[in-house]
Amino acid sequence: MRFGHFDDEAREYVIETPLTPYPWINYLGSEDFFSLISHTAGGYTFYKDAKMRRLTRYRYNDIPTDSGGRYFFINDGGDVWTPSWLPMKKDLDFFETRHGMGYTRITGERGGLRVSTLYFVPLGETSEVQKVTITNTSDHVKTFSLFSYLEFCLWNAQDDQTNYQRNLSLAEVEVEGSTIYHKTEYRERRDHYAVYSVNAEIAGFDTDRETFVGLYETLAEAKVPNAGTAQNSMASGWYPIGSHQVDSTLQPGETRELVFVVGYVENTEENGQGKWADDAKQVINKTRAHELLARLDTTEKADAAFEALGEYWTTLLSAYTVTSPDDKLNRMVNIWNQYQCMVTFNMSRSASYFETGIGRGMGFRDSTQDLLGFVHLIPDRARERILDIAATQLPDGSAYHQYQPLTKRGNNELGSGFNDDPAWLIIGVDAYLKETGDFSILDEVVPFDNNDALAQTLYTHLTRSFEFTLNNLGPHGLPLIGRADWNDCLNLNCFSTTPGESFQTTENQAGGVAESTFIAAQFVLAAGQYATIAERGGDTQQADRARKAAATMSQVLLSDGWDGEWFLRAYDFYGNKVGTHEDTEGQIWIEPQGFAVLAGVGVEHNADGTPSATSPAFRALDSVDRLLGSAHGLVLQYPAYKSYRIELGEVSTYPPGYKENGGIFCHNNPWVIIGETVLGRGAKAFDHYRKITPAYREEISEVHRLEPYVYAQMIAGKEASRHGEAKNSWLTGTAAWNFVTVSQYLLGVRTDYDGLVVDPQLGPDVAEFTVTRRARGATYVITVANSGREGSRASLEVDGVAIQGRTVPYAPDGAVVQVRATL
Amino acid sequence: MRFGHFDDEAREYVIETPLTPYPWINYLGSEDFFSLISHTAGGYTFYKDAKMRRLTRYRYNDIPTDSGGRYFFINDGGDVWTPSWLPMKKDLDFFETRHGMGYTRITGERGGLRVSTLYFVPLGETSEVQKVTITNTSDHVKTFSLFSYLEFCLWNAQDDQTNYQRNLSLAEVEVEGSTIYHKTEYRERRDHYAVYSVNAEIAGFDTDRETFVGLYETLAEAKVPNAGTAQNSMASGWYPIGSHQVDSTLQPGETRELVFVVGYVENTEENGQGKWADDAKQVINKTRAHELLARLDTTEKADAAFEALGEYWTTLLSAYTVTSPDDKLNRMVNIWNQYQCMVTFNMSRSASYFETGIGRGMGFRDSTQDLLGFVHLIPDRARERILDIAATQLPDGSAYHQYQPLTKRGNNELGSGFNDDPAWLIIGVDAYLKETGDFSILDEVVPFDNNDALAQTLYTHLTRSFEFTLNNLGPHGLPLIGRADWNDCLNLNCFSTTPGESFQTTENQAGGVAESTFIAAQFVLAAGQYATIAERGGDTQQADRARKAAATMSQVLLSDGWDGEWFLRAYDFYGNKVGTHEDTEGQIWIEPQGFAVLAGVGVEHNADGTPSATSPAFRALDSVDRLLGSAHGLVLQYPAYKSYRIELGEVSTYPPGYKENGGIFCHNNPWVIIGETVLGRGAKAFDHYRKITPAYREEISEVHRLEPYVYAQMIAGKEASRHGEAKNSWLTGTAAWNFVTVSQYLLGVRTDYDGLVVDPQLGPDVAEFTVTRRARGATYVITVANSGREGSRASLEVDGVAIQGRTVPYAPDGAVVQVRATL
Repeated sequence: MRFGHFDDEAREYVIETPLTPYPWINYLGSEDFFSLISHTAGGYTFYKDAKMRRLTRYRYNDIPTDSGGRYFFINDGGDVWTPSWLPMKKDLDFFETRHGMGYTRITGERGGLRVSTLYFVPLGETSEVQKVTITNTSDHVKTFSLFSYLEFCLWNAQDDQTNYQRNLSLAEVEVEGSTIYHKTEYRERRDHYAVYSVNAEIAGFDTDRETFVGLYETLAEAKVPNAGTAQNSMASGWYPIGSHQVDSTLQPGETRELVFVVGYVENTEENGQGKWADDAKQVINKTRAHELLARLDTTEKADAAFEALGEYWTTLLSAYTVTSPDDKLNRMVNIWNQYQCMVTFNMSRSASYFETGIGRGMGFRDSTQDLLGFVHLIPDRARERILDIAATQLPDGSAYHQYQPLTKRGNNELGSGFNDDPAWLIIGVDAYLKETGDFSILDEVVPFDNNDALAQTLYTHLTRSFEFTLNNLGPHGLPLIGRADWNDCLNLNCFSTTPGESFQTTENQAGGVAESTFIAAQFVLAAGQYATIAERGGDTQQADRARKAAATMSQVLLSDGWDGEWFLRAYDFYGNKVGTHEDTEGQIWIEPQGFAVLAGVGVEHNADGTPSATSPAFRALDSVDRLLGSAHGLVLQYPAYKSYRIELGEVSTYPPGYKENGGIFCHNNPWVIIGETVLGRGAKAFDHYRKITPAYREEISEVHRLEPYVYAQMIAGKEASRHGEAKNSWLTGTAAWNFVTVSQYLLGVRTDYDGLVVDPQLGPDVAEFTVTRRARGATYVITVANSGREGSRASLEVDGVAIQGRTVPYAPDGAVVQVRATL
Repeated sequence: MRFGHFDDEAREYVIETPLTPYPWINYLGSEDFFSLISHTAGGYTFYKDAKMRRLTRYRYNDIPTDSGGRYFFINDGGDVWTPSWLPMKKDLDFFETRHGMGYTRITGERGGLRVSTLYFVPLGETSEVQKVTITNTSDHVKTFSLFSYLEFCLWNAQDDQTNYQRNLSLAEVEVEGSTIYHKTEYRERRDHYAVYSVNAEIAGFDTDRETFVGLYETLAEAKVPNAGTAQNSMASGWYPIGSHQVDSTLQPGETRELVFVVGYVENTEENGQGKWADDAKQVINKTRAHELLARLDTTEKADAAFEALGEYWTTLLSAYTVTSPDDKLNRMVNIWNQYQCMVTFNMSRSASYFETGIGRGMGFRDSTQDLLGFVHLIPDRARERILDIAATQLPDGSAYHQYQPLTKRGNNELGSGFNDDPAWLIIGVDAYLKETGDFSILDEVVPFDNNDALAQTLYTHLTRSFEFTLNNLGPHGLPLIGRADWNDCLNLNCFSTTPGESFQTTENQAGGVAESTFIAAQFVLAAGQYATIAERGGDTQQADRARKAAATMSQVLLSDGWDGEWFLRAYDFYGNKVGTHEDTEGQIWIEPQGFAVLAGVGVEHNADGTPSATSPAFRALDSVDRLLGSAHGLVLQYPAYKSYRIELGEVSTYPPGYKENGGIFCHNNPWVIIGETVLGRGAKAFDHYRKITPAYREEISEVHRLEPYVYAQMIAGKEASRHGEAKNSWLTGTAAWNFVTVSQYLLGVRTDYDGLVVDPQLGPDVAEFTVTRRARGATYVITVANSGREGSRASLEVDGVAIQGRTVPYAPDGAVVQVRATL
C-alpha cells in the first residue's frame, strides 16, 4: 500500500494523505541553519548545533506522535482549520505534501481556500522561509484570518525540557511591527536571539502560549485562532511562542502570497554589533535582524532564493546519474540516496525523528563511512572533514569514537577503544584520493589528539592506523576487538550487570583476548588500500609490508576465522568462538561474511580467471542466503539471542529480531551485495539490494512504515513479531554504503587512481542503462548493454574504440567521453 | 476567586472544577513508592528514585500542560467520557477532586453513572491502589465498559525521553489473567518489573499504545475506548501501556467496586527469588507479584489499607495542633503545612510539577532546613537523616552541596563551596536535640566524605562546621561567601560569560574576597547554638570560644555589615558593597535583615528589658517593610536588577521581579517574620505571614494560580508583569521555615532543652487559641488569652500554678499538662 508517489521530474516525494504510517520527514538547510519538517509541518529548527542552539520546540514521541511544529491556522468566517492537517485534523478537500531537495511544500484546501506553504532554508541564510500562498478557489469573496504559530525553545534543547524551576521564569520577547523577537537569556550571557516575521501588516500577535492555546486546550483547540482574534500577549516567563494574525480579503480566483521568516541573529564583537539599542530599557540591537529580514521581504526575493536552492541541488546531483527502464533504481540513484548522503554529511547522527539532537557528537567511524557517500558531491568539504577527523586520532593510531562538531575535539566521556575505528580513516582517504587525485592531502600536517605539538602528516596518520591493528592482535593472530568493532553492540569485554549502564562507556575487563573477524576483514581491505597509497607515495617498503600483512590476515581468517561453512564472528573474552554452528544461537553473523568477500578473502579463482564456485567466499555467501535471508532483507545474525549473554554485551539486550539482535541492518546488507558482485553474481546482488531499498518497498509502506524515499537503519527481522517494520530512518551509514553499492558495484561505475572503472554487475533485470559520471573535470557517458550474464565482465569501447580491462582512463578537464559497455 | 474549598474535618482540599488555573497536585506514598497526582489524574509513579525507577510516563509542560497520568475511560453505550475530566474533557454532571493526606479521590458523573476513584499508596506496599467505585445513579439498567490506561516508562526517566534509537526497540510485556506485566529490559540486567492489575475478570486488554490510542489521535480520541473493544495488543517495541477493559451491568442504584493496583516487583538474590518461571521462553517469575496483588485483591483489603493510612496521618499530625477562631490558621498549622513538610522530607527537591525528578540529589542545606519542619513528626528518621548528611561533610567542615539518596554519597559534579552549608548542620542538630533531648546522637561516629577512615563523632562534625566559618573570613571579618550562600544565585566569584553555563558548577575565580553578611548572621545563630551544645556536653572552653566568636561577628555585622538603615548583603570580588543605598539597584536584600534580627543581632534593649525601637534591628526591619513590602509579600531585593551584573552571577539573569531577582521568596519571608516576633511586633509578623500563606491566598487563586493548600517557592514580585503569580510549589524549604515560624514564633510554642517555651507573638487578630503539643512523651494543652499587646511576653500558669519566665518544664512520659498563657 502506497501513501503517495514519486515525482521524479520535480525530484519530490508527493504524500497524498496525512495518514501516513509514521511522520514522514524532510531536512531543510545545508550550511549553518537546519530544520526538520514532517509531512504535517511538525519538527523544529536550529542553528549549527541541534542541542545548544535550538530555536523552536518539539516534543519527541508525544501523543499524538508528531506534536509541535510551525503551523498556520485559518479562521474562515468561524470555520477554523489547518492546511497541514495537523494539529486541527479538519477534513480537507485537498491535501498534499511534497518533500523535495531541501524544501517541503504542504498544501491544504478547504471551503474554497487553498493554502500552500513552501518551507525552505535559503543558501547563505540563517533562516527558514515559510512562503504561504493562499488562493480563493470559490466563486465568492472570502474574508479570513491566518494565524501563524511556533513555540520557541530556550536554546539548549536538553535544559529546555528538564530545568523548569529556572526556565519557567525566563521568557522575554519584544515585538516591533510584524516581527517577534525571542530574546530569552539575551539579557545575560547570550549574544543571539530569534526572530519570527512576516512581510505584511499584521492585525495582531501573540507571544504567550497560554494566551494563544490555553491551559487545558490542545493545539487543535487553541483559543486565539478559534476565537479569531489575536490578544497581543507579551510573554513573561512560562512558554514563549510566536504567532501573527494576518487578515485578508480575496476575490474569487485571487491569490495572496505571504513570506514568513524564522531566523537566528547574533550580535558579536566579531560582527561589530553592539548588544543593545537601548541599554537602560534592555531593547535589543535589531540591525542584523532588519538586514536578515530585508533580504527576504518580498515574494520576488523569496522566489529567487528558492530558485538558487534548486540550482544548487541540480549541480550537486549531476555528478552521478543513471537512466534506465527501472524507475525505482533511477530515483534512488539520481535523487534520494544521494540526498540522504548529503543529510548524513550535514547531521552525522544528531537529529532525526529517532535522535533528539541532544545526545551525540560526530562519530569517527560514522563520518569516515558517510564520506564514501558524499565525496563525489562535495570533495572540498570531504577534505576538510577528513582533516577534522584525523586530528582527533590518538598517537597510537586509535581514535576517540566521537567528537563534538562545535569544538572538533574528541569526546572524553565516550573515549576510545573501538578497534575498527583506525582503519576507517584509511578507507575514507582511499575514497577521497580515488575521487580527486588530490595527493597533497597526504602531506597536510594534522595534530594527534587535537594537540598541535603532536602533529604529523596525514600519511603518518594512515600509517598509525595501519600499525594499530598489527600492534593489537590476539592469540589467533586476529585483531583484538577492544570495546566493540563496527557492531557497537558486540561488547566482549564488558560483562555489564548494572541496569541502564551504557555498554559503550562502562569499564571493560582487562586481560581479555577477544578478537574480531570483522576487523580482520576490514584490515585486509584497508591494508591493501594503504599499500597502494604508500606505493604511489614512493614508500615501497611500507607498501610491501602492508601487502604481506593483508595476505597473512587473509590466511588467518580462512584458518582460525573460519567455521566450516562461514566465517566466525569473534573469539570472546575466554577465547570461545562467537558465530559458530556449535552454538544454539547466533550461529552466523553477517558482518564478516560480507566484508571478507568484498575484501577478496577466500575468493579463489578458476583457471579462466573466474572465481571458483566452491571457494570459501561462495560458501560464506551461500550460507548467508540460506540462514540470514528473509523477505525483507538479510538479518544480522541467526538465530537471534533469546536471553542476555553477558559475555556478548548489548547485542543480546534487544528482543529477538530487533536491532543488532537479528534485525535487518541495512548498513551491512551492502557488504554482502558488494561481495556478490565480487563473485560475479549480479542477479543475487540486485535482489538483496531491492529488498531493503525504500523505493522498492514503497508498495508495502503499511508494513515498512517509514519514509519510502530514504533508508532506515533497521528493519525488524524474521524472528520479530513485527517483521518488515523499519526504524531509525535518515541518519545511518546505510545511506553511504548503499550508494557505494548501487553506483560503484551494481551499476559498476567507480573512480580509481588512473581512471573510471566500469564493471556493471546487477543481473539481467535492467537490460540497458546509461550512467553519466562527472569525475575530475570530465564527464563520462556510459551506455551499458547488459545481458546480466553471471561471472563475466563487460567489454568496453571508449569514444568508439575498444579497450582492454575495466578502466576508462581519465580525460582532460571539460571533456565528454562516450563509453559503451557490453556484458 | 476560589476553585474549591477546604474540608478541614476530612483534612482535604476539595477542588470543585477541573478548570483550576494550573494543575493542582498531591503526593501519594511515604516510604519507598511514590506517586504524583493532579486533580485531573495526571502525574506518575516511581519506586524510591524518581529518575532511576520511574514506573509510568509523564510529559512535563506539554500541550495541554498536564498530559499523561492514569486515566479511566467509560464507554456507556457509545457515550465515551473520563471521570477525571481529562483527557476527554466531556461535560460532567458532577466533578470533584479531594486531595487528602496521602490520597486523592476524583469523582465524575455523567449520564447517570458516577465514577469515583480513590488513589493511594498503602503503607508497607510498593504499589498504588486505584479503587474505582461506580454507581448507577439513573433510573434504568446501565451496561457499560470501563477502560483503564497508563503508559509505562522504561525505568530511567531521562533515558526514556532521549534515547529513542535504542528504546523504541525494547518494550516487552506479558499478560496473565487480569494482570499486565511490564518487563522491558528485564531480559537483560534488570531484576524488577511493573504490574498493573484489577481484581475482576477483564473483557480484554491492551499493552501497545498505538493500538489503544492511535498514531494521530490525542488521548481524548483514543481508538479503543471510543470504539469500545479492547484489542488484546501485545507491545513489541515502541510504547508499552497498560489498559484493561472491564464490562459491567448495574441496576438503578447499584454500585460496583474495582481495585486496580499498579506495583513494583523485584526478584533479587536477597529476596530469594529466581529470575524466570520459564527460562527458555523468558517467562518471568511472578511469585512476588502474585503476593503483592493478593494483599489488595478485595475491596475489604483495600479499605483496610486505606484506613491504616488515615490512622498513620492522624497520629503524625497530632504532635502539634491549634484550635483558634481563624480557620485558615488552623488548617495550615494542623494539616497542610505539616503535610508539606513531610513531602519535602520524602522528596527533598526531586519531583514536582516544576522538578522533573531527573536532575537533583538531596541538598545538604535543603535537607537540614527541611528537618526543622519534620523533626517533631518523625524524630527517628530525622536522626537518620542527620547522620546521612553529616557523613557527606568534608574534613575541613565544608560540605558537598548535594548528595545522592540512593548511594548517600556526595555529588562530585556539583561539589562544594557553598559556604553557608556547614552551619546548617548545627542548626539542624540543635532542633533535633531540643525536640528529643537525645544527646547520644552527638557521640555517634560518622565518616567525613563518606570515608570510614576519617570518621569522628557528630560533635566533632559540629565543631568542624563552627570552625569552618572562622577559618574562612574575609578582610572585613565577615565570612567568605565561596560559590554562593543560601542564595544559590548570588555568585560573587563566578564571572560567567558562557551562555547556559551553570553558575553552580562553573569554575570560580580565585583570590576573591567576597563576603556574605547572610553567613555572618547565620553564624551568630549557629555559634550560639553550638555554644549551648558544647556547654551541655561539658566542653566549656569551646562554649566560651563560640559565644565570643558570635559576639564578635555580631559586632562586625553592625559595623562593616551595616549600610546605615539596613544590613549590607555582601562585599563582592573587588570588595565593593552589595545591597547598599549607594547603588541604583539591589539596594536592600531581605536575607541578612531577617536572619540577623532572628539571631538577635542589633536588638538593643531598653532599661525595662524590651527591645529598643531605635536599635539597628528595628531600623532594618522597618526598611524591609518600606522597600521590600508588597501586596503579595516581601520581595527578595529592591530595586531588581535590570541588566546582567556579571559580578553578581545568576541573580541578575532573571527578568526583574522573578525568582531571586526581586521575586517574593516565601523561604526568606519567615526570617523577617521571626525577626518581628523577636522585636515583639506580632501584628506585623502575622501580617507578613498571611500575605504569603496559601490558605489566606485562596480567594485570589486566579492570581496566585498554584495550589491554595501548599506553599510555592516564589511569588512574582512587584516589578514583575505578573505580580502575585506563584511558581514552584511543594518542594521548597518554605514549608519548613513557615511551619517553624507559625508554630514556634507566632503561636509561640517551641521545644527547648529544659522545657517547652510558650511565647505567642501574633498580634491581636486571634484573641484566643489552644495549642496541643506532644513533646518527649507528654502532652501540653496550652490555652492562650491573647491581647496581642506588642512588646510583651505572656504570663504562664502550669496546671493552675503561675511560673516565671517562658519555659514550661518537661513533664513525665504520658502526662497531660495544662498551660494557661495570658498576654
